[in-house]
Amino acid sequence: MFLLTDVQAQHPLTFFTKAEAANVKKELDRYPLLLKSYKDIKIQVDKQLGTDIDVPVPKDPAGGYTHDRHKSNYMLMFNSGILYNLTGDLRYAVLVKRILLKYALLNPTLKKHPQATSSSPGHIFWQALNDANWLVYTGMAYDLVQNSLSPAERKTIEDGAFKPEVDFITKDLNSWFNLIHNHGVWACAGVGIVGIATDNKEYVDIALYGTAKDGKSGFVAQLDGLFSPDGYYTEGPYYARYAILPYYIFANALQHARPSLKIFEHRGRILLKALQAALQQTNTDGSFFPFNDAIKEKDYSTSEMITAVNIAWTQYGADPGLLAIAKNQKQVMLNGGGASIAAALTGKNVPSYYPYKSVEYADGVKGDEGGIALIRSGKEKKLTTLLFKYTAHGLSHGHFDKLNISLYDQGNEILSDYGSARFVGVEQKYGGRYLPENDKYAAQTIAHNTVVADETSHFNGSEKQAEKFHANKQFSHLGNPAVQVVSADADNAYRDVRLQRTVYMLGLPGEKKLMLDVFHTYSNKVHQYDLPFQYKGQLISTSFRYRADQNNLQPLGSRNGYEYLWKEAQASIADTVAQFTFLNGQTYYTISTLVSDSATLFFTRTGANDPEFNLRREPAFIVRQNGQNKTFMSLLEIHGKMDPVIEISSQSYPSVTRLKLIRDDADFTVVQAAYGGKELLIAQSNKDFKDTEHTISNQGTDLTWKGPYAVWYDHKRIGVEK
Amino acid sequence: MFLLTDVQAQHPLTFFTKAEAANVKKELDRYPLLLKSYKDIKIQVDKQLGTDIDVPVPKDPAGGYTHDRHKSNYMLMFNSGILYNLTGDLRYAVLVKRILLKYALLNPTLKKHPQATSSSPGHIFWQALNDANWLVYTGMAYDLVQNSLSPAERKTIEDGAFKPEVDFITKDLNSWFNLIHNHGVWACAGVGIVGIATDNKEYVDIALYGTAKDGKSGFVAQLDGLFSPDGYYTEGPYYARYAILPYYIFANALQHARPSLKIFEHRGRILLKALQAALQQTNTDGSFFPFNDAIKEKDYSTSEMITAVNIAWTQYGADPGLLAIAKNQKQVMLNGGGASIAAALTGKNVPSYYPYKSVEYADGVKGDEGGIALIRSGKEKKLTTLLFKYTAHGLSHGHFDKLNISLYDQGNEILSDYGSARFVGVEQKYGGRYLPENDKYAAQTIAHNTVVADETSHFNGSEKQAEKFHANKQFSHLGNPAVQVVSADADNAYRDVRLQRTVYMLGLPGEKKLMLDVFHTYSNKVHQYDLPFQYKGQLISTSFRYRADQNNLQPLGSRNGYEYLWKEAQASIADTVAQFTFLNGQTYYTISTLVSDSATLFFTRTGANDPEFNLRREPAFIVRQNGQNKTFMSLLEIHGKMDPVIEISSQSYPSVTRLKLIRDDADFTVVQAAYGGKELLIAQSNKDFKDTEHTISNQGTDLTWKGPYAVWYDHKRIGVEK
Repeated sequence: MFLLTDVQAQHPLTFFTKAEAANVKKELDRYPLLLKSYKDIKIQVDKQLGTDIDVPVPKDPAGGYTHDRHKSNYMLMFNSGILYNLTGDLRYAVLVKRILLKYALLNPTLKKHPQATSSSPGHIFWQALNDANWLVYTGMAYDLVQNSLSPAERKTIEDGAFKPEVDFITKDLNSWFNLIHNHGVWACAGVGIVGIATDNKEYVDIALYGTAKDGKSGFVAQLDGLFSPDGYYTEGPYYARYAILPYYIFANALQHARPSLKIFEHRGRILLKALQAALQQTNTDGSFFPFNDAIKEKDYSTSEMITAVNIAWTQYGADPGLLAIAKNQKQVMLNGGGASIAAALTGKNVPSYYPYKSVEYADGVKGDEGGIALIRSGKEKKLTTLLFKYTAHGLSHGHFDKLNISLYDQGNEILSDYGSARFVGVEQKYGGRYLPENDKYAAQTIAHNTVVADETSHFNGSEKQAEKFHANKQFSHLGNPAVQVVSADADNAYRDVRLQRTVYMLGLPGEKKLMLDVFHTYSNKVHQYDLPFQYKGQLISTSFRYRADQNNLQPLGSRNGYEYLWKEAQASIADTVAQFTFLNGQTYYTISTLVSDSATLFFTRTGANDPEFNLRREPAFIVRQNGQNKTFMSLLEIHGKMDPVIEISSQSYPSVTRLKLIRDDADFTVVQAAYGGKELLIAQSNKDFKDTEHTISNQGTDLTWKGPYAVWYDHKRIGVEK
Repeated sequence: MFLLTDVQAQHPLTFFTKAEAANVKKELDRYPLLLKSYKDIKIQVDKQLGTDIDVPVPKDPAGGYTHDRHKSNYMLMFNSGILYNLTGDLRYAVLVKRILLKYALLNPTLKKHPQATSSSPGHIFWQALNDANWLVYTGMAYDLVQNSLSPAERKTIEDGAFKPEVDFITKDLNSWFNLIHNHGVWACAGVGIVGIATDNKEYVDIALYGTAKDGKSGFVAQLDGLFSPDGYYTEGPYYARYAILPYYIFANALQHARPSLKIFEHRGRILLKALQAALQQTNTDGSFFPFNDAIKEKDYSTSEMITAVNIAWTQYGADPGLLAIAKNQKQVMLNGGGASIAAALTGKNVPSYYPYKSVEYADGVKGDEGGIALIRSGKEKKLTTLLFKYTAHGLSHGHFDKLNISLYDQGNEILSDYGSARFVGVEQKYGGRYLPENDKYAAQTIAHNTVVADETSHFNGSEKQAEKFHANKQFSHLGNPAVQVVSADADNAYRDVRLQRTVYMLGLPGEKKLMLDVFHTYSNKVHQYDLPFQYKGQLISTSFRYRADQNNLQPLGSRNGYEYLWKEAQASIADTVAQFTFLNGQTYYTISTLVSDSATLFFTRTGANDPEFNLRREPAFIVRQNGQNKTFMSLLEIHGKMDPVIEISSQSYPSVTRLKLIRDDADFTVVQAAYGGKELLIAQSNKDFKDTEHTISNQGTDLTWKGPYAVWYDHKRIGVEK
């Protein structure tokens, strides 16, 4: 039994404790960032002190008045509750109380929201997820002002404002509440925080162990079921960011209310791993890599990440990496962690970048369902990240993008992922929900940088099918800046096509960066294979002649996302190396693609069949080959600089001048290229990924190496030195 | 006779004097920005100390090796010359000498550059302009190391390196040299600086007064002939930025060598006015407003502007506005001005923004050839700038854009000017020169935000015709934040169409910003009139139904730039207010267009007939009306906020709910609108711009006002209070 007898003295317990609040109060004036964060909140709340806050009857979808009003109401109550504790000024508590009493009148009257379209409709909002958000913040607000309320007021609020909402999501939406899914994390956190705030053991137990209290659902099961052992979140970093808030904020409350649970130690500190994995999955500008359904603007400055970083700082100890994040977040929470971070940032020279590194994360609860690799080269503002995705599907927010790659360089997107087709919060755009083009284009394979067979998406675009399978890593070697490599395959994306991709990130002398992409398809039947490069930038030159569609544009295809692509130009090429140079920011990028027999190349742009202008207009370069077993062999080179301010352009031409397949069969692939006049030779095994010694004939002489791959530059083996 | 007898003691004279250099040297360690600027140069130069610098036979166009090499050679010599004076280390002087001796061998052998295509070909570079740049910097470099050279070395360099170049541009290219044009400014500065550096009075006189020394050409004539009395540079700010360097750097040298000229006081301090006008013509992000031929990336951080700001600081005195610029430039020159600015920036709280204000600049040497207005509202990062252009043509870099407007808000382009079609310095893109699409699209009227009659550009796209005429301001009132207005007309853009445009920037209660655009066309014949809005952003919603071209795109037209526009959608509307909302950054913008009888609306995007992908893909919204005298009446509203981080969108719908023309004839236009439920009433005179009192009937009652316009909001006259 965790309830103390003196309830009055005990609260607050959720956001911070009484002692913690006293300490924050003491330090407010000492640290500029803490003071600024305090003032930001105080200015907002003070404007509304003494005014009558509207608690309207729910009516509008996301982006509409009632939606936004209820959303800002719970943040207002939460912030006002914090201020009550930091200032002792009763007016802040009264503000919270008055709003809570209005909800106590409103909530018992609510039924399904009039704009509800999802399978889990809300009461206050169009979807239950937002009602769970409301419970989290309103629960904390109540906890923060609890000791200012009379017993009668407490009863009115607990019975009127909270009970109908808790009953609704735990009973009416029982199966939604118990589902292992990010919505469920919010739901558990909401019910659990209300439980702690209202001293309701039943609520807390349900929150922890599911409505059946058997541990198959509930918060602990969510901790066990949504992250891989590495802390990778199966829906991807955009949703990891979103889910991490209820995880941390409920864990923080549990640490105060049920310290014996040692929730932050659970599963080998899974919450720390989850936070670190989420941060590693950001670009140097702080934005989360936008794979699966993702809004590109989201970065680690969101309140979710501020909360998680501030709590982690307290629970897991001071960490220079977190400090770099906190510096860029430019805001702290008004709790112990926030005060401590603000102190650590004061007057110190803190690094501007998170310690990004090359890293792999396994997917799946047991870590056996593929994963992602972040292959990194260079550092700080010159960091390059090649993201290789060979995960499971990622639940309802997954895209059909087995073996997809994305490339980021100097903070910019170079080979991009469209993310999701959605204007979050914009009522005019389908109420701010996912747009039809999200399923129809953004989730389809052609919207990514991986092979599409026969203009059909992986798993035929069926989420149900896709959920059954995952890709597999074959081998990898990360961390040696000269040669980093990851290889993976996907057997089930198509019924009769196996996909196998190996990507190399090479760091050559003179800080030169070069990526080799070897993509094999295997089949017993002839297929049309397309490998798109969703490049960001302006076409500068090509080594091949193409025919532009100058007076008439038509879609590239008619289904599975192809109908959204205008075909702007095409080329037919044979037995050549096709080079395409584009400019992004001040840097040139060249894709050199080897075509052994014949191929068709396309330049496309999104926008066809988009009658409501829901898609951004973005270009792609697509390589098409027909056959059974085909190899897409591409070198991507980062080169030169175009400085429009001083009007000097340097190294605007690629250094790759030759690209040849010496051997390419089921056993081995041997690639020879000329780079800056020197020979680059790469040999890889396509079947045997053990430490076997291989000897094969290479143009008359023997080539010998051990293990799944080897790279020679200028006739010297590279990537093996320490 | 300005030559002193002791030449040894006198130099350097161009970039700085001996005493100035000694002072900079003394202060190097004291001010962080000065030290950083010094180290930046020193690191660059030190890398090349003792190496053999290539002075290749000219061969390549802009962006090619020999072009870039000669360009970096003159900067290297200049910087090394500065370091010689600041360190006393003779190795820096030797570096300069060795390169100069190579040029002394090369230059006498040179003829027309093999890649020359312009009417003023160069020797070292493809165009003579770059040779003039070479003279400016190489002349200064020589001056900086002169006192380290033996008389024989001096003679070799003066006769070999300089004389052939000076002879070439003053004799072979005599008429080019004497032309009043930005190239001529560079040519005069080059010859003049070489004259000062080599103690050659003849060169200096030619530079000052033209090859005939009659003052009809030369630097003084360029000071008198290229700026309007306000300091407006007729080619626009992009070229003002470029021309300002030779003006300032030669004036600076003259101030040392011929102080009696008082060149900085010439024409009422025209050089100060020119600098201030150029700075006012920048966006809050520092970029120059890109009208006429202009590269959008150019901002005031260019070396040209650093030089001008640093010299102005010395010549015209310390100025907080210049200090804000210098803070953002993050670099100073290593001269007296630079040192003084670095001192002023040290440890002080310097404003981040230039003191932008609403201002008009007249065009034309006498200030009687139209002009531009910068109408500003709000301040600092919330500054809005409406740019209205009613200038003369702007010489060879002018666009056919009479009465064009552009809009900037919060640092972003909202209604944009394409600028020029050019990848400056990129060899693969037509040698870095203006692309064919510059004349064929970017300069054409349809690429702007002004009326096109009959799909034909102003002046039928003839520069020669356009140069004969200019637009005229009719009336204006700037500075009152509630109502600012500028009205102008253009009689000659078309043979039988007169264009008249009046733009209002209104600041309504609650920091609301609203622009009214009243565009009249007058003709005796029926024409097709198009008014494009080159908006930047994503379509959010429209009040009208349109038909999107989903499966087949075709160009909007076949000539005068229309052939570059894909027609993405169109709508036919009648007797309505057509509203179009788009999102740019986190802000919504709505254009409400009144259509009194019928109109066709188009959504277009650049990219048709662009076989080499030379154009950026940019959208436009075009209003088409047919008739003789037509009025385009548009309200542009800035509203709301979409914050993707917190996922809240507010005020995403426009507040304009009604728009009506109460009266619209040759005498008066009276507009009535509902904005936020309140009446907005605007009356303007279309003919009489004096201080006359007008009384007209408005829906039964009399409307009385004095002067060319009046605005009422919520039945109260606004914009008249102080």
